[in-house]
Amino acid sequence: MSFTHIVTFSWKTEHADETALTTALLALVRTLPGVDLYLCGPDAGVTTGNWDFGVVGRFATQDAFVHYRDHPEHQRILRELIAPHLAYKSVVQIVE
Amino acid sequence: MSFTHIVTFSWKTEHADETALTTALLALVRTLPGVDLYLCGPDAGVTTGNWDFGVVGRFATQDAFVHYRDHPEHQRILRELIAPHLAYKSVVQIVE
Repeated sequence: MSFTHIVTFSWKTEHADETALTTALLALVRTLPGVDLYLCGPDAGVTTGNWDFGVVGRFATQDAFVHYRDHPEHQRILRELIAPHLAYKSVVQIVE
Repeated sequence: MSFTHIVTFSWKTEHADETALTTALLALVRTLPGVDLYLCGPDAGVTTGNWDFGVVGRFATQDAFVHYRDHPEHQRILRELIAPHLAYKSVVQIVE
């Protein structure tokens, strides 16, 4: 069973620091167990109307995802690097 | 360089046939070149406020993605299985 967490963000006019955000998220997941796949980053600007930033995390178990979600550093990233700039957010979680 | 296409859907009150949609998308990508990773499916219902359906496709090149995007079967799936039920859609494309 794998648990895939898919998130997309749309920023307010004043964008988040996407480099700092990408760096912080990737540094965090390198320290966590049960992360089978993780990618994140800004939209490439190839298609009109896209949102701004995406995250895909595939976790070995739902518990591994919960550990990531509730981790103090993840909460800090949400609070400091994402929330101040966030206009819209979508989340889908697929269990396979 | 890989091209990751991330999509989330939120349905109108009358949901799409998520089993038919998942089956059709997976059948299509099995026939296409340059698809390094592809997963799709309904939200697991674990977190309140999530959207309904997600797709993540990691393509070896942007051309491989464009081939998928413009494929007649993909266009049929969008037209017949998604569009009639679609309330909101978000797309983020990450180039790595």
